[in-house]
This record gives sequence, C-alpha cells and structure tokens, in this order.
Amino acid sequence: MMDPPPQGEVENILKRITSHPGVLGLVVINPQGLAIKTTMDNATTQLYANNFKNLTSMARSSVRDLDPLDDLKFLRVRSRKYEIMVAPSGDYSLIVIQNPNQRDV
Amino acid sequence: MMDPPPQGEVENILKRITSHPGVLGLVVINPQGLAIKTTMDNATTQLYANNFKNLTSMARSSVRDLDPLDDLKFLRVRSRKYEIMVAPSGDYSLIVIQNPNQRDV
Repeated sequence: MMDPPPQGEVENILKRITSHPGVLGLVVINPQGLAIKTTMDNATTQLYANNFKNLTSMARSSVRDLDPLDDLKFLRVRSRKYEIMVAPSGDYSLIVIQNPNQRDV
Repeated sequence: MMDPPPQGEVENILKRITSHPGVLGLVVINPQGLAIKTTMDNATTQLYANNFKNLTSMARSSVRDLDPLDDLKFLRVRSRKYEIMVAPSGDYSLIVIQNPNQRDV
C-alpha cells in the first residue's frame, strides 16, 4: 500500500473531481460503509453509501470467485439517468455520480 | 419493447462482438440466469452466469432504490485482469469478458 496523500491533497482531488462538468456529486465511504466525505444531502448520501457498499462488495466477491488472484479495480453502473462510478482503494471507496448526458460538455 | 431481431441477425451480432480484439468470451443469460449462448467452457460459463445474474439484479435494485423511475442500462466491472460488461435487455443479459490490456490493439 502507498502512503495516503496529505489531507489537503485529498481535498484538492475531491474538489477537482466535483468541478468536472456533469459531476453531480461524490461520496467517500469507509470500510464500515459510512460516508466520511460527501457533496450531497444526508438522505441521498445514505442511499448511495448503503447501495454501493453492498454492490461493490458483491462485485469484489464475484471477481475473486472467477479468479482468486484477481481483484476489483473499478465499477461503473450506467442507468438511464445517471452514471455512477465506484473506485475502491484499500477498504475505502470513492463514489462519483455523473449526468452522462452532460459529461462531454 | 422493440421486436427482437431475427435469429440469424443475433448470431451475426454475437459473432461480431466475439471477433473484436481483446474479447475473451461472451455469455447470454435468460431471465432464470441460465446461459443460453456462450463461447466458453461449461464451468466458466456457469461461474459467469451465476455471479453476474446476482450482481446485475443487485445493480438494478440499487438504481431503482435511488430513483424508482430509473433503470439499469449497463454494468461494467473492471478487475486487475479483466473488464466484464453486462448489457441487460429486457430480462436477458449479455455478458462480455474482455482483456483490458488488449482492447485497443
């Protein structure tokens, strides 16, 4: 594992992601599935944290079931309205919610 | 729902996908999660069908939990070794397994 970047650097990265056109919000969840960073209201944050904690964990299990030496790097869920990307890093996960119709503006 | 394309057309589409550089295999699963088309051996097909039936169904539930008017269009799981894409269509799902390092050859 790499050393984590200094706290100010994390803030900068999150700010940079959030400022991308089409990005509607982001949530960082800890190993317990609790949101430790969010740009959204409490209820929406809870919904994303709960749903994507379980989905990411199931995706990781599937990847390892197919090949025990493999590991999940990225998960992308495209719905009619949104594109949700989950980047697990160690036991933490970054969830980014985008408007897919606005992404390339 | 659109009318399904004629059977020969389906075969052509599947053949075209399989011939893409980097595509390692594909599986089509029916609403019961059974593989009705596959380019892989039986054990591998079963593993993919079981894992991605459950994962796709959980991804669809998450999408609807976040917005009851929304629906899953596409799911992409990137691991260290593979990129697995699931395209649900009605109750059927097309699963495509790619080698991400070979995709752009």
